[in-house]
Amino acid sequence: MVITYEQQAECDGARAGILRTPHGTFKTPMFMPVGTQATVKTLTPEELYDMGAQVILSNTYHLFLRPGHDLVQEAGGLHKFMNWKQAILTDSGGFQVFSLGQMRKITEEGVTFRSHLDGSKKFLSPEVSMDIQMALDSDIAMAFDECIPYPSDYEYTQMSTERTSRWAARCLDHHHSDTQGLFGIVQGGMYKDLRKQSCQDLVDMDFDGYGIGGLSVGESKDIMYDILEHTTPYLPKDKARYLMGVGTPDCLLEGVARGVDMFDCVFPTRVARNGMAMTHTGRLTVRNAKYAHDFHPIEEGCQCYTCRNYSRAYIRHLFKAEELLAYRLVSIHNLYFLLQFMRDMRQSIFDGTFRQFRQDFWKRYQDA
Amino acid sequence: MVITYEQQAECDGARAGILRTPHGTFKTPMFMPVGTQATVKTLTPEELYDMGAQVILSNTYHLFLRPGHDLVQEAGGLHKFMNWKQAILTDSGGFQVFSLGQMRKITEEGVTFRSHLDGSKKFLSPEVSMDIQMALDSDIAMAFDECIPYPSDYEYTQMSTERTSRWAARCLDHHHSDTQGLFGIVQGGMYKDLRKQSCQDLVDMDFDGYGIGGLSVGESKDIMYDILEHTTPYLPKDKARYLMGVGTPDCLLEGVARGVDMFDCVFPTRVARNGMAMTHTGRLTVRNAKYAHDFHPIEEGCQCYTCRNYSRAYIRHLFKAEELLAYRLVSIHNLYFLLQFMRDMRQSIFDGTFRQFRQDFWKRYQDA
Repeated sequence: MVITYEQQAECDGARAGILRTPHGTFKTPMFMPVGTQATVKTLTPEELYDMGAQVILSNTYHLFLRPGHDLVQEAGGLHKFMNWKQAILTDSGGFQVFSLGQMRKITEEGVTFRSHLDGSKKFLSPEVSMDIQMALDSDIAMAFDECIPYPSDYEYTQMSTERTSRWAARCLDHHHSDTQGLFGIVQGGMYKDLRKQSCQDLVDMDFDGYGIGGLSVGESKDIMYDILEHTTPYLPKDKARYLMGVGTPDCLLEGVARGVDMFDCVFPTRVARNGMAMTHTGRLTVRNAKYAHDFHPIEEGCQCYTCRNYSRAYIRHLFKAEELLAYRLVSIHNLYFLLQFMRDMRQSIFDGTFRQFRQDFWKRYQDA
Repeated sequence: MVITYEQQAECDGARAGILRTPHGTFKTPMFMPVGTQATVKTLTPEELYDMGAQVILSNTYHLFLRPGHDLVQEAGGLHKFMNWKQAILTDSGGFQVFSLGQMRKITEEGVTFRSHLDGSKKFLSPEVSMDIQMALDSDIAMAFDECIPYPSDYEYTQMSTERTSRWAARCLDHHHSDTQGLFGIVQGGMYKDLRKQSCQDLVDMDFDGYGIGGLSVGESKDIMYDILEHTTPYLPKDKARYLMGVGTPDCLLEGVARGVDMFDCVFPTRVARNGMAMTHTGRLTVRNAKYAHDFHPIEEGCQCYTCRNYSRAYIRHLFKAEELLAYRLVSIHNLYFLLQFMRDMRQSIFDGTFRQFRQDFWKRYQDA
């Protein structure tokens, strides 16, 4: 097996473990920063490494269109192309393609769509997605799935989920690599029986790990937590579970509480570029006028590069002056915040204090 | 004296020395990266330090308007505000104000102008410029001068240059700091006798060093070199000489050949953000299509962070994808290139091989 997961501790449903990849062994639960176009926006790989990032995510759809997976392969793979020495997970391209709405057409064979860059006609299928991801040579490839819109009726959700299972089998058939593992993706919309069926279909195929897709797509957080609670029990304990596209601290905590090991989201870096910093008590809009003369760091006690060296007043000045360093500094803070949050959570699982950790979080966070 | 210069070697008119400041002792000839708005665009202070930057320049005009020198003073001065631990030189604000054209009015007292940010009426004078720079607490303040437009007739140039001398005297009268030195600025347009007179006026006042202003304002490089050749001989050997606003390798080399010690320019960082890299053979537009599959670094053998880790193909991809990391990577390369160029030049002065260095440069550079 190229990718393996080993559970080391469990506490009130939350688990801590290690994930072994061709580019190192990493600690879960983990948050994966997103490098959509072969770069985590504004940051260097060294900055990510220094803040404790382990695995980053990059997007098959975007790299397929630009610069093209052939070019990345010619460069020696994505790690070498972008100078990232630890692990990379690539998504399947499915989520982006299905987000194109009217610009795409789904058949059993795959999806025809128009590029958002130049309108040219493109085709993605389980086989094409595997070919692209093998060319990129990420450590973890994701199976090609349909991310079902919310809300969707039972009939469509059932049909789509069954097709996703057939596509998963085609991915497994087509995928061959000594340096890349393959995760299946659980779908099933907001229907618990379909989630269960999807889990059973995929587990029977024996993937290296399991993504949980189709959540955080517009449903309430209560629904998401409920569906999650009825999904993870059907996944094997000896494989990693990855809740896709989720990246706020409350959702990470509640995901971990339900047995999830891995997360990714553009949220922390996207909001950073809008001047919004993440803190233990909630969001802080550092570009606001009230911070003009505030010489404290974004969050007192935070050990990130930004908080150790810069004041809210300075960062606000950079935003007002539209200086690019502003986006870097808050991106560094937000990613560090989430990575440290995951490290603290992991420690509480080992210490047997996860329940307390969760209670303390909700006391603080609701105040914000 | 807060700022002192000591010449260590001389070779064919070029000199190598050290500049002592309250924030360290630095080697000349030197190039100073420009941090217009209290940040060298896209970079952290650590990145500048790592590439060997010694003194950086920041702009009085910009900081006066935003965030305001009072705020910077409240933060503990510009070093602390922006997290730069080595030396800072601030310009006087004169150059930016005079660039406003019809938006400003000059009298003997000073200059009334409208802010480029909000159109509000502002006033700068020798005294106000000193007050602002003392509040910023840079290591080197520059006297408030008029940068004469090119071309200007003899009569206007003479009148303005004499006024700049009177303003210089007012700057000296008003300036008082134990942590900041003050440089005068030589003017005189393209008239050698006025340059000589300006030098004599300022040297009589005994500044801590001398800027040479009003060059690289539209005249040919031959004229600039000629005027420079007739200026530096009138400046004392025991003070630093700073050619303002010049930053291409050919001009740095020819400036050093005429006895200049310090330079600054936005050129290397500005062109970097447009995808233009500086090399020993000339400019390389890394965003061009011909580099799409070029997996070499920007310049073979360059030891900068960018060239050690990234290919032209990757950097081109970042530019095409409008990723901010693109601007960082080429800014790092261009500044490193110029700083290393100055270090090599300095070494050749010590080695007595500056003439050869200059010849070799022109053989390569004319090929570009």
